[in-house]
Amino acid sequence: MNNKLTITMKQFKYIFLVSIFFSIFFMSCETSEKETQKETQKETQNTQTAITETDPLPSWNEETSKSNIIAYVSDVTNTESKNFIPIKDRIATFDNDGNLWSEQPIYFQLFFVIDKIKLMADAHPEWKTQQPYKAVLENNMDELMKQGERGLLQLVMATHSGNTTEEFKSDVQEWVKTAKHPTKNVTYDKLVFQPMLELLQYLRANDFKTYIVSGGGVDFMRAFVTEIYGIPEEQIIGSRIKTEFDYNDGNPVIRRLAELEFVDDKEGKPLNIQKIIGKKPVFASGNSDGDLPMMQWTASNKYKNFMLYVHHTDSVREWAYDRNSHIGRLDKGLDQAINDGWTVIDMEKDWKVIYPFELNN
Amino acid sequence: MNNKLTITMKQFKYIFLVSIFFSIFFMSCETSEKETQKETQKETQNTQTAITETDPLPSWNEETSKSNIIAYVSDVTNTESKNFIPIKDRIATFDNDGNLWSEQPIYFQLFFVIDKIKLMADAHPEWKTQQPYKAVLENNMDELMKQGERGLLQLVMATHSGNTTEEFKSDVQEWVKTAKHPTKNVTYDKLVFQPMLELLQYLRANDFKTYIVSGGGVDFMRAFVTEIYGIPEEQIIGSRIKTEFDYNDGNPVIRRLAELEFVDDKEGKPLNIQKIIGKKPVFASGNSDGDLPMMQWTASNKYKNFMLYVHHTDSVREWAYDRNSHIGRLDKGLDQAINDGWTVIDMEKDWKVIYPFELNN
Repeated sequence: MNNKLTITMKQFKYIFLVSIFFSIFFMSCETSEKETQKETQKETQNTQTAITETDPLPSWNEETSKSNIIAYVSDVTNTESKNFIPIKDRIATFDNDGNLWSEQPIYFQLFFVIDKIKLMADAHPEWKTQQPYKAVLENNMDELMKQGERGLLQLVMATHSGNTTEEFKSDVQEWVKTAKHPTKNVTYDKLVFQPMLELLQYLRANDFKTYIVSGGGVDFMRAFVTEIYGIPEEQIIGSRIKTEFDYNDGNPVIRRLAELEFVDDKEGKPLNIQKIIGKKPVFASGNSDGDLPMMQWTASNKYKNFMLYVHHTDSVREWAYDRNSHIGRLDKGLDQAINDGWTVIDMEKDWKVIYPFELNN
Repeated sequence: MNNKLTITMKQFKYIFLVSIFFSIFFMSCETSEKETQKETQKETQNTQTAITETDPLPSWNEETSKSNIIAYVSDVTNTESKNFIPIKDRIATFDNDGNLWSEQPIYFQLFFVIDKIKLMADAHPEWKTQQPYKAVLENNMDELMKQGERGLLQLVMATHSGNTTEEFKSDVQEWVKTAKHPTKNVTYDKLVFQPMLELLQYLRANDFKTYIVSGGGVDFMRAFVTEIYGIPEEQIIGSRIKTEFDYNDGNPVIRRLAELEFVDDKEGKPLNIQKIIGKKPVFASGNSDGDLPMMQWTASNKYKNFMLYVHHTDSVREWAYDRNSHIGRLDKGLDQAINDGWTVIDMEKDWKVIYPFELNN
């Protein structure tokens, strides 16, 4: 196992943010039971609305966000329109955490880190007395916080590196099958947003190429989200760690190294879009200030473009947070959205259901 | 203009190789006229062969390389076959230089560097007395060689960075429209291999997703090869320099910085394939040892796979070189291809024509 740690300024900034999410986590858990009760009531109310087959966005209420989306797609796919966009340039980019699925009380990838450390502990008896592992194994979060960014990076690297791409994929797939969200009490793959699944499908039906562009780990996402979102591996873009190729006597592997290579957040999003896609999106969707540069880049497209923000306004069915949140903070982005006339989804008002399982209730 | 130079070990290795190509260039030019004469004779002989409409590879002679390709594609796309590959996993990766177009006497991207320095000289009067620019402007290649790797990197960065992605794209597009190959005397975009164009088309007709995975600059290629090969920008992978996002008061740009970020050669190829595509190819095509790790990675696919080497054996119509060449060296790769039963194209014997313009002769 390669556990060498190399920390750059950029990584420090990233880890600092991530560590804040941990602390938020343990505040949020206190209110979780109350939320679950309210949630159940609201779900019942909302799923009674009839869903027609001809409606491309059946889980969306007839509000401005829905009509804006349909007006845009109808316009740019109409060959008679001056705003027509050739199919090859219909690039749509979606943030993942907080945009296609929930991100509270902490990014779901961090639950994987915690769970995986516990799973790995048998093979690492030294962790019983060694920080930051000891704190995780004892569920001692005060102590874990004291370990700071460096401690957190150690945990991330212990669970994300020192293995091959195939081994890591299998780790994540095993986890997602069984691990459950602490307050929603379902596996994490159930916590995707039904209205966004419909939007992805609607765009693809209109020959848009849908991409995920997320701050989350690209190999973490690729292990399981392709099926959920209908987005192939090659259209998933995210943060990544360094890797090395090993011919391995004719059984080649790619080994994951304990060093961050690229953080796909803020300015990293348009940069990665240019590096990997090489085209400016015409449609971008996000939920936080971390998505703002991607939105700004999209808004500068010569083609008619569409910027969509998910505003988390539903404290009952999901979570409510924006300008003052430490996770998924939406502050400057909200100002620019209002100022520039971008579409902002009011989750509480605009969405009939949040999660796919509500459709069956 | 940002002309700060940062050189890592990897960049040194890259630049060292590139500088060798320069020296090769000036050796090769001496024999160019003789070659051109022979070329004309041979072209005439070869284009008289009839091309039938039902043949997916009409510019290929009925040799083993053609029958191997057709047998493979027929097998893995046959739903009744035990070797059937689902469409989503039909990833085919192609090297560019020496594989989809010629690469002699130097990589064509280096001609762009030389031409562009000359174009930029008016705005840089100081270059008249300043190396390595002076050597380029005076066509003094002995002096240029003395400037070594550092000099070459300065030239590359002067022509590839300090501008925005849009400006660079327009530079390359302008160049490719007018610049001509020193011995073939046609614009560079004419020097693509007709048989490979047919192979790309044949694979796509069978639902393979075709990618370029090249040591060349990704933004250099994207500026003009999409049309030529029918490969969209997002399926072009290559070497790249660092970039930065600038909101630029509401007119966002991505600026190209004078620092290499990733060299997409040798082990870099499978690493970049994993980073960007996230799937192992089932079909890989290259022409040099720089492609060998990509071939090895492909050969380890659980699906039936196909490794294809272009062997430059045609000193008359194209160029002949392999084990001892400083550019496009094919030595270890040729050994492994022979040993492992990969398909090796004998360009002289297997291809009826080399370039598309020969079809009209």
